[in-house]
Amino acid sequence: MNNPFFKNHGPFKIKELFNDINIHNSNILSNDNILDVRDLATSNKDDLTFFNSKKYQKDASSTRASYCVTLKSLIEYLPKSCKAICVDNVLLSIAQITSKFYPESINDDFDNTVREINKIKLENTIQYGHNVLVGKNVKIGNNCLIGHNTIIEKNVIIGANCSIGSNVIIRNTIIENNVSILDGCIIGKKGFGFFPNNQKNLRYPHIGIVYIGKNSEIGSGTTIDRGSMSNTIIGQNTFLDNQVHIAHNNKIGNNCIIAGQVGFAGSSILGNNVMIGGQAGISGHLKIGNNVQIGGGSGVIKDIPDNSKVMGYPSKDLRKFLKDNK
Amino acid sequence: MNNPFFKNHGPFKIKELFNDINIHNSNILSNDNILDVRDLATSNKDDLTFFNSKKYQKDASSTRASYCVTLKSLIEYLPKSCKAICVDNVLLSIAQITSKFYPESINDDFDNTVREINKIKLENTIQYGHNVLVGKNVKIGNNCLIGHNTIIEKNVIIGANCSIGSNVIIRNTIIENNVSILDGCIIGKKGFGFFPNNQKNLRYPHIGIVYIGKNSEIGSGTTIDRGSMSNTIIGQNTFLDNQVHIAHNNKIGNNCIIAGQVGFAGSSILGNNVMIGGQAGISGHLKIGNNVQIGGGSGVIKDIPDNSKVMGYPSKDLRKFLKDNK
Amino acid sequence: MNNPFFKNHGPFKIKELFNDINIHNSNILSNDNILDVRDLATSNKDDLTFFNSKKYQKDASSTRASYCVTLKSLIEYLPKSCKAICVDNVLLSIAQITSKFYPESINDDFDNTVREINKIKLENTIQYGHNVLVGKNVKIGNNCLIGHNTIIEKNVIIGANCSIGSNVIIRNTIIENNVSILDGCIIGKKGFGFFPNNQKNLRYPHIGIVYIGKNSEIGSGTTIDRGSMSNTIIGQNTFLDNQVHIAHNNKIGNNCIIAGQVGFAGSSILGNNVMIGGQAGISGHLKIGNNVQIGGGSGVIKDIPDNSKVMGYPSKDLRKFLKDNK
Repeated sequence: MNNPFFKNHGPFKIKELFNDINIHNSNILSNDNILDVRDLATSNKDDLTFFNSKKYQKDASSTRASYCVTLKSLIEYLPKSCKAICVDNVLLSIAQITSKFYPESINDDFDNTVREINKIKLENTIQYGHNVLVGKNVKIGNNCLIGHNTIIEKNVIIGANCSIGSNVIIRNTIIENNVSILDGCIIGKKGFGFFPNNQKNLRYPHIGIVYIGKNSEIGSGTTIDRGSMSNTIIGQNTFLDNQVHIAHNNKIGNNCIIAGQVGFAGSSILGNNVMIGGQAGISGHLKIGNNVQIGGGSGVIKDIPDNSKVMGYPSKDLRKFLKDNK
Repeated sequence: MNNPFFKNHGPFKIKELFNDINIHNSNILSNDNILDVRDLATSNKDDLTFFNSKKYQKDASSTRASYCVTLKSLIEYLPKSCKAICVDNVLLSIAQITSKFYPESINDDFDNTVREINKIKLENTIQYGHNVLVGKNVKIGNNCLIGHNTIIEKNVIIGANCSIGSNVIIRNTIIENNVSILDGCIIGKKGFGFFPNNQKNLRYPHIGIVYIGKNSEIGSGTTIDRGSMSNTIIGQNTFLDNQVHIAHNNKIGNNCIIAGQVGFAGSSILGNNVMIGGQAGISGHLKIGNNVQIGGGSGVIKDIPDNSKVMGYPSKDLRKFLKDNK
Repeated sequence: MNNPFFKNHGPFKIKELFNDINIHNSNILSNDNILDVRDLATSNKDDLTFFNSKKYQKDASSTRASYCVTLKSLIEYLPKSCKAICVDNVLLSIAQITSKFYPESINDDFDNTVREINKIKLENTIQYGHNVLVGKNVKIGNNCLIGHNTIIEKNVIIGANCSIGSNVIIRNTIIENNVSILDGCIIGKKGFGFFPNNQKNLRYPHIGIVYIGKNSEIGSGTTIDRGSMSNTIIGQNTFLDNQVHIAHNNKIGNNCIIAGQVGFAGSSILGNNVMIGGQAGISGHLKIGNNVQIGGGSGVIKDIPDNSKVMGYPSKDLRKFLKDNK
């Protein structure tokens, strides 16, 4: 799904985009128009993409993008239809370019477009509490409940029959039907992505959204950050307990059960029917298969195949963990 | 303590309760009236109880309930005064029946009965902040302080001299005298209990409450869920630090000290004078004795006898942990 | 930095301060005036300090305080200019005395001095949301943004160009320029410090503040407690992710990166350029050097020298951790 919320300020000429970026093969720059900046898998013709780790070699080989910001050593994996632009720091360069396409994605200050819900013309029947605020570009489905002091900031679509608790803050998020968001959740803020810099870290633009599938439930005090270049996804009928933290770009499958205080570092992909015990942590950029069970307190730092049961820090096969700790 | 908050819609005829539940010994069903549904220990004559694990064999043998939903293999542990009703899934059946007795216990949407506190006739001297909301069936004791934006939802009794912070949300809770609840706590919501189902998980009714003993303190951003069939209890003079998560049915003793970000999975029982270091996790259905000390970061997955000091994941004797990790 | 917020009710005669404290060398008491109570390093002539562990022997030997509450066994480390007052329980005694100097530091009830921001004469250009409350003794710099429902309680100084989110609560805190505080943070409340007592724990006065250096960012739902006898410090350009807990007296350096759900037990000192992975825990009273990297989920229970990479629970050299867990 493409982000329906942030305005694309393109097209830009490819030359123009790299005005202030040092590239190794500047002869590649032309007056070609670039329509959008996207990840390897979702790019189309006339888009610019990026490729900074062999890990994504498969996606790179089939990208439809016309240009790709990459490292010299990775050029060989790109298809002929995609022109490589070699830089020193792929992510830093793509961040600068993304900021040009989507300047609004950088601002995560409080939403000053909100108005009191009773001063807004609502299209659907909604029951709401005291002091509810609603921003621009918000749709709320029929029969929704919105609790006290809750702030639906700009760029939010909520399906029908959803129950949003009190003291909740949401922005840049799509929520399907029959979802419950319990009290005190903060959903859709930028992730913890930036380039460390000794005087002042440089913010990474977050053009992704949070997507929550139907019938899901998000426990009290949970935080879910929106994606940077892709979206953060919670599958349907997936239940999260209290004080869970879902960082940017994580994609969680359907029918998952995630207990209290679990944390995700970012950009991991979970299958369906995954169960995770309390306080477990999932490192970044991992692939967790279907029907996986992860014991409470585990620290997962490697991919986990389908149907596995693991526990431990670092996590290992559950039987091995229990045997090793007899 | 029985739950004083949810209305019991009984009595129901035993036959009626099992209308839509498949039972193995349907000849047992009669027109007998059932007054209430309760756990093994607190049931009385003409109540229905449930028994689904040998672990509770002792409670089962002395239950005063007239009927018990159970498994074929567990019938033998019940006293003659208690008629066994055999089903495939004890918890699922008891959830369906509990929902009939206490239909209000299933709804955890925001409380739309609340009113601004300055529009309510208060019986006691209370000092309160801006934008405080109070629901139906709430009693607040003398000399209490209630901070800004705090929502005392329905079914709450607060003793005298309590200090409730700002941005706090409480429902279905009894708080004794001299308790401090710091900012941003969420107390009394349903626990993370449900029956997984591939299209739409089935909610477990939570008819328990949260009970907080006198002189206790609950740190900022802490979540305490109410019990399902029994109560969640925080003993007196027990202090919880920030961002602690207490799941449903946990019973914590007196004079306990629980540091930041500790989490409880549910249904565990702690003795008195227990000290738990930061980020430790306590699995479900455990018994932790008196005067136990649990080191920070520990993962407790077994019962712990009185006067023990443990640390590690899984936790073991503290001296062994220190020796093993020299 | 001395605390600019709590009023010093001194001077007190030294005799008067120990009225109700049992001391071993009562002949030392005189009518000398004591101006202030401070820690070993920051005390001056005519101040009272305290010394309760050999660990602080170096600071003790060079203290400028005129009097020091200590143990018999530690007297020898004090300079001749500093008169030792021997007690049974140093921290308990100093807590009682601190409460006399700074009685306001004990009260952490909600701030009833706040007013709606639109009823206050602001000196600078500030953009603010709905329902913002501001207490006494608050300064907010130019071009600051203050989100909805945020409460700037008493004793807060905020620099220029800061972005404070919604549902934030701050007190007793100094924030430098260009700092971002994301939604739902609770900053400046007393730490989890008290003297356990079987009927009613005794609160420790917290006369420290929270100090946040320029260009820093505090993630959503993070809690930072103010110091007890010293301050809690977040260095400049240091970024904290969501749901982090910083307990009292921690001092974190510049350019640090602290991922989600990390917790600090209290009184530890971090160098500059420290990176900490998600869910790691840092025990109390530790010294973590410059350029240290701590893996996600680690439990740090020992000092860590400069430039180290560690992981594990308890944490050890990263290479050793990876080798041990192959």
